Amino acid sequence: MADEKKLVEAITSMDVDFAQWYTDVVKKAELMGYSSVKGCMIFKPAGYAIWENIQKELDRRFKETGVENVYMPMFIPESLLEVEKDHVEGFAPEVAWVTYGGLNPLQERLCVRPTSETLFCDFYKDEIQSYRDLPKVYNQWCSVVRWEKETRPFLRSREFLWQEGHTAHATAEQAEERTQQMLNLYADFCEQVLAIPVIKGRKTDKEKFAGAEATYTIEALMHDGKALQSGTSHNFGDGFAKAFGIQYTDKDNKLKYVHQTSWGMTTRLIGAIIMVHGDDSGLVLPPAIAPTQVDIIPIMQKKAGVLDKAFEVKEALKAAGLRVKVDDSDKNPGWKFSEQEMRGIPVRVEMGPRDIEAGKAIIVRRDTREKTEVAIEDLATEIKAILDRMQVEMLERARAHREAHTNVATNYEEFKEVVATKPGFVKAMWCGDQACEDKIKEDTTATSRCMPFEQEHLSDVCVCCGKPAKKMVYWGKAY
Amino acid sequence: MADEKKLVEAITSMDVDFAQWYTDVVKKAELMGYSSVKGCMIFKPAGYAIWENIQKELDRRFKETGVENVYMPMFIPESLLEVEKDHVEGFAPEVAWVTYGGLNPLQERLCVRPTSETLFCDFYKDEIQSYRDLPKVYNQWCSVVRWEKETRPFLRSREFLWQEGHTAHATAEQAEERTQQMLNLYADFCEQVLAIPVIKGRKTDKEKFAGAEATYTIEALMHDGKALQSGTSHNFGDGFAKAFGIQYTDKDNKLKYVHQTSWGMTTRLIGAIIMVHGDDSGLVLPPAIAPTQVDIIPIMQKKAGVLDKAFEVKEALKAAGLRVKVDDSDKNPGWKFSEQEMRGIPVRVEMGPRDIEAGKAIIVRRDTREKTEVAIEDLATEIKAILDRMQVEMLERARAHREAHTNVATNYEEFKEVVATKPGFVKAMWCGDQACEDKIKEDTTATSRCMPFEQEHLSDVCVCCGKPAKKMVYWGKAY
Repeated sequence: MADEKKLVEAITSMDVDFAQWYTDVVKKAELMGYSSVKGCMIFKPAGYAIWENIQKELDRRFKETGVENVYMPMFIPESLLEVEKDHVEGFAPEVAWVTYGGLNPLQERLCVRPTSETLFCDFYKDEIQSYRDLPKVYNQWCSVVRWEKETRPFLRSREFLWQEGHTAHATAEQAEERTQQMLNLYADFCEQVLAIPVIKGRKTDKEKFAGAEATYTIEALMHDGKALQSGTSHNFGDGFAKAFGIQYTDKDNKLKYVHQTSWGMTTRLIGAIIMVHGDDSGLVLPPAIAPTQVDIIPIMQKKAGVLDKAFEVKEALKAAGLRVKVDDSDKNPGWKFSEQEMRGIPVRVEMGPRDIEAGKAIIVRRDTREKTEVAIEDLATEIKAILDRMQVEMLERARAHREAHTNVATNYEEFKEVVATKPGFVKAMWCGDQACEDKIKEDTTATSRCMPFEQEHLSDVCVCCGKPAKKMVYWGKAY
Repeated sequence: MADEKKLVEAITSMDVDFAQWYTDVVKKAELMGYSSVKGCMIFKPAGYAIWENIQKELDRRFKETGVENVYMPMFIPESLLEVEKDHVEGFAPEVAWVTYGGLNPLQERLCVRPTSETLFCDFYKDEIQSYRDLPKVYNQWCSVVRWEKETRPFLRSREFLWQEGHTAHATAEQAEERTQQMLNLYADFCEQVLAIPVIKGRKTDKEKFAGAEATYTIEALMHDGKALQSGTSHNFGDGFAKAFGIQYTDKDNKLKYVHQTSWGMTTRLIGAIIMVHGDDSGLVLPPAIAPTQVDIIPIMQKKAGVLDKAFEVKEALKAAGLRVKVDDSDKNPGWKFSEQEMRGIPVRVEMGPRDIEAGKAIIVRRDTREKTEVAIEDLATEIKAILDRMQVEMLERARAHREAHTNVATNYEEFKEVVATKPGFVKAMWCGDQACEDKIKEDTTATSRCMPFEQEHLSDVCVCCGKPAKKMVYWGKAY
């Protein structure tokens, strides 16, 4: 069978070659495909369905905080991109340029948006006149393009999907509040829905967004000990407002500049899910985000009554609010089991003629392989309980993994030793000088991931230069 | 107040200048804004929220028929666009070309997708091997770009949002079945959800999609008597499959070409909603698609208890499944009424201190202005009944308008007279020769909208050339 060929060779073990394991999972779980367009990927149904669930859940949370969705053009005229100087320096080298419309050269070339601050600013400039027009709390779901050289499925590609929120506020305090609010929303989403624990903190100036006053980030640790920036929230202060002239008349009748923020999450979250939860049998999806939560696999399905019962159970589980399918393909059950495991479906239900006769079925949990025999009438209740436990335990396990892979270094020899030998985060003090970040990166390839909100005092001096320390920083090699 | 200024000048009456009325409604209902990017529009929250509801409802209906969502790259290499000859001829003159990636010229230029048949074909070529891999029933929600010269909000712009379904089937019959199924789905959606009646039919060869064997369409009539193509479904036969080499091994072990379809609906549907249902007070939204269905407008809201009651009612209506908001801004009630009317919110609830004391409120229906006094505890039930009636009656009214604006012509003098003097559809017989379509277009600017599935025999001869007639055609001026 053609289908069987695809899976029959086992995937590379993650301990043997993590990068190859990742590529194997992406391919065999049919999450993504390669396209003829260099550096651009194809989201296959199983991959896109995860993104749809991420969208649904994030969008609901956004709207609860007053976010409204809009849609801006995908093109940015070169002159508009150039208005804010730091911003254009950061993005111009990596954008795609449209120079022809139909058969005619354009008078001004347009870049395909790498991010939309400039478009939102240009819009807000006309849209905002009075304090009554504030705040503006807009978001869009779209794709963006950055002309990357190296690409990897979900983690880095020339086009990716994301949401970008762009807000304008009357005061600096309100902008800061929104920046933090969205960072917290992102962190809660990662932990509660994706079961991925994150470190919240602030980026150093070297690592912050082009044009931002402050960039906050959530950093997650993958199974191989590398860090993944999983969401960022930027406070622009009034920098963009001054560059674009976005002013409003306040209650005191004075003309003031607005204060702005932006924040985004991308399809790289799917890469995070794979690399935090996956195992050597494939993907493991947190129940809260799994497009299919329950895979019913009939045993000896040609026997009278087996498939009928399987579909009857499916309807009952569906009615109970579960996302469920029956695998009634003509593959053998063992094959179906490994396919369900590869695809990371949280729970499978096995039921054959004898089980059905006895009014029972077997539930197998994807992450722990724990098997439970359950009366058919109790399936919905039991599965829900298992999914709830699984969701919580996946987060706990990921947190324990992160704790076990977070080390401390108080001098530079130790720091280099830890980075070289112990994959994971390194906590170490920093003087605040970019030269030390540069040196650390050059010596170890580790970068500053963030200055965590939860600071600790590990020593008085910078781990690199020995001058007085200002901040504790999480360091690590990153995707 | 800045807000009041925006609405204070009344909009142009639709009978005076329909095009200006349309532009006024788009602007004053805050559906769309102009951008600095020539020919590209900004979807503002009120406009985008309608699109979100269209997406939600269409997507649900798609998935019930087995559609799976995917996402393809937004770029198409020039060589890929050129594989199918009719297709490239149709689209190459109107695409945007990317020629630079970052600082470097590209080896091969890429167009921004105007539609994605070529990408799906390129993908299916590798993805489909066996009859077991069929059918593929994929769809994507995205934006596409066509370098139009003239643009109008929602109706024609260089970038627009849409969904594009692309399917591959084992047999010609299955492809035809899917083509028809999607056309019927579109028609049902337009009628049941958007309250827009449509004519289902087939496009002539002159009007069909570049590369299609057959294009089916649904055609709606706007208030001004012009037609709007509202959705299309194409059967490609095996033309693309042969051009791209998409073959599968069938059960009989023979290598066969797949049969393909594609089908799409776009944000121009929002233009249709405006032009079918709107009136001189602004937008009128069908309840099924309205982002806000009920606008509660408190009277004398500073009086103790009024706002509390308004929010209490809001919660009760929300719990009953209605989409509802309270307008507690500091504008006066009359102002709020005209704003609610401009935005097309189907029902408003007026409640002041005396109403509240008497346990009553006033409901005003947007389309008919019908007022009903209702006991507060009956509000949810009564509003639901009103919304249901409104949904049905809006469709009936639009259908009656279309019937009243559909004429018959049996000779060319009559045809020209009808097109010149009676805005609307003209039904007339046609010989099947493109020369007659060309002549009619040149003489009258009317085009063949479709050969309806429900054929009538109006005469034996073509309305244009007098030769034997093959089909009855709906003709009309179109957006």
